[in-house]
Amino acid sequence: MRVAVIGVGMTKFGKHPDKSLVDLFADAFFEALEDANIELKNVEAIYFGNFVGEMTDGSANLSGFVADEVGLKNIPAIRYEGACASSSVAFREAVRAVKAGYYNCVAVGGAEKLLSAGTAIGTRALATAVDGVYEMTAGLTFPGVFALAARYYAKKYEIPLQKLREMMAYVSVKNHKYGAVNPKAQFYGKYGDLKVEDVLNSRMICSPLTLLDCCPMTDGGSAVIVANEKFAKEVGGDPVYVLGTGQASGGSLFRQGEDIIKAIPRKIAAEMAFREAKITPKDVDFVEVHDCFTIAEIIALEAMGFFEYGTACYATAEGVTSIDGDLPVNPDGGLIGKGHPVGATGTSQIYTAVKQLRNEFKWNQVKDARIAMTDTLGGDFGTLVNIILGVD
Amino acid sequence: MRVAVIGVGMTKFGKHPDKSLVDLFADAFFEALEDANIELKNVEAIYFGNFVGEMTDGSANLSGFVADEVGLKNIPAIRYEGACASSSVAFREAVRAVKAGYYNCVAVGGAEKLLSAGTAIGTRALATAVDGVYEMTAGLTFPGVFALAARYYAKKYEIPLQKLREMMAYVSVKNHKYGAVNPKAQFYGKYGDLKVEDVLNSRMICSPLTLLDCCPMTDGGSAVIVANEKFAKEVGGDPVYVLGTGQASGGSLFRQGEDIIKAIPRKIAAEMAFREAKITPKDVDFVEVHDCFTIAEIIALEAMGFFEYGTACYATAEGVTSIDGDLPVNPDGGLIGKGHPVGATGTSQIYTAVKQLRNEFKWNQVKDARIAMTDTLGGDFGTLVNIILGVD
Repeated sequence: MRVAVIGVGMTKFGKHPDKSLVDLFADAFFEALEDANIELKNVEAIYFGNFVGEMTDGSANLSGFVADEVGLKNIPAIRYEGACASSSVAFREAVRAVKAGYYNCVAVGGAEKLLSAGTAIGTRALATAVDGVYEMTAGLTFPGVFALAARYYAKKYEIPLQKLREMMAYVSVKNHKYGAVNPKAQFYGKYGDLKVEDVLNSRMICSPLTLLDCCPMTDGGSAVIVANEKFAKEVGGDPVYVLGTGQASGGSLFRQGEDIIKAIPRKIAAEMAFREAKITPKDVDFVEVHDCFTIAEIIALEAMGFFEYGTACYATAEGVTSIDGDLPVNPDGGLIGKGHPVGATGTSQIYTAVKQLRNEFKWNQVKDARIAMTDTLGGDFGTLVNIILGVD
Repeated sequence: MRVAVIGVGMTKFGKHPDKSLVDLFADAFFEALEDANIELKNVEAIYFGNFVGEMTDGSANLSGFVADEVGLKNIPAIRYEGACASSSVAFREAVRAVKAGYYNCVAVGGAEKLLSAGTAIGTRALATAVDGVYEMTAGLTFPGVFALAARYYAKKYEIPLQKLREMMAYVSVKNHKYGAVNPKAQFYGKYGDLKVEDVLNSRMICSPLTLLDCCPMTDGGSAVIVANEKFAKEVGGDPVYVLGTGQASGGSLFRQGEDIIKAIPRKIAAEMAFREAKITPKDVDFVEVHDCFTIAEIIALEAMGFFEYGTACYATAEGVTSIDGDLPVNPDGGLIGKGHPVGATGTSQIYTAVKQLRNEFKWNQVKDARIAMTDTLGGDFGTLVNIILGVD
């Protein structure tokens, strides 16, 4: 029996100081429930992704609180934590549980509050996604991880660093352009006409990455309803089927060494998803990838098999990943333009994919899209999840 | 196809200042691997439970690091966080994934460091398992939650508080007696001959609960190997089968109100497990319950269906839950005697159950045990998991 996504919801991404994590999930959940056109009692379990609720809301053990908040106290509710991939892990496990016949219909989602936690707590919280005993204590934060990756990419593929910076900047220009027209995006109405020079000349965060090479800190929630094909057909609507999923893990950065720009766990996860979907990268109409930094989008596209290693930077600069290119990437703005409320990011990618495949993504629709792929990266390649979705 | 536990391991519970969370899991994992008599390559996925690694080790996103540490980088590794029930949730999901045919053999476990984090960080971390926005901020910590429960229990069932305190003290006397002879227990060799008066007269923590009514803070790791029946029979040994599992959720304490002593999510989870196992409470030979406080063991036994509401306190004081009584409870010392390294507690209960059912628990063996049940409580009834295990 196939498994489908039958409803999606998300809050506006941005700053929500007056909402708790539970509130943000609930807002997205009820939008998804209405979108699916089902009743509350149809939801048999909740799969919830959150990264650092204990540090921002003072709350761990959140799954029971979110279940209670939406009126589903007593059902099984599970929290998944895989850093930025938290709700993607939750989604994959939910799909597998429905496929196995344990449930007809479940809710999956995530929430995070980082922007309203402030830079000090937010930065400290995000840093816990790297090895906390040996690496974070040496001062490693995420701009540092990806600055290292950018420098190693330039060296390995013999690209002058300034030339790579210009190609990376195109990722920011593109994703901000798409985020600027997405009303749910954190930078809606902003940065829509950035130039490469703007990115190069913005404030240096961790050389060679400037502020505009980085995704922002974000508050937000997202949720989707997952059901088996029988249930999906009973409630009507336009089911979007899960064609394949993959997941793999990495270890500490020290042990990954030079493999960091090859993103081996992502290669494994993507191949797993392609195998299950019985398709190849050529069959994918557009992708939502984890562009936490501009260089991250380039690395992701290579490891997923869309471009040879060392070449996605050129393809990007040539416009191949634009919405009118061969492989549109992040048509919703990605993490850079849409924002990155960590625990909510994975299911927000599913939100975009589903809206696009239903031809409902009115603010930036990819033409004739039938197959979409998502990619979420937890930490410095600690947790990788890829999902392939499609319509009949 | 049935699902079995084919290997178990755990560190000594206690203080491990020189070990990281990853180290503690790895130690338990290799013991379980050896116990199962399998090779590393047989393990296809890791299900890992941890509560507050971000606050004690500075590490979230731990599943990839534990996979890397044991030599299994690249396989799917998932972190579950459900407070004190973290590794029980992980275990239940692992069992269901194996039963569904996704894997032949997986590892499940957990780790936590609270004792070596110190009282200030430990208490702050533990408090995140209650509602962090409205309840923890009002000063609610876990001794407070269970002190409220004890007072409400006394009122509801019209038991003079001093009389209830004496009956509760028997839980501490019993569990410390069993912990004192368990070499893996935090209080091995200590408190083996406590008297009820010792418990009543120990330092008051949160009235009516004294220090000896409370479980300690603990560092430790535990791990088990879960496999399908075919694989289990191929590798030999003594498989212990998973007969049934259940899980349910609660919400904030404010909304639970008077239901706190009925532990409704636990009633639902236990009934789910009994239904799946096709047995009743009468068929269970012994139980490992979540005695974070003495009153908690009493409440647990009632909600699970072993005693009528308001009566488990009398049964306990009469010795029914002693190892030579009708229903031995916590023959390994429970959380009170063995210790409570939160993320490791659930699979440490499975460790005891399996060793007992194999007739290998040499330090306190329950006679002729064929069916065991475990119970783990995450937070103030936020996450409840019950597991039933048995041998042919």
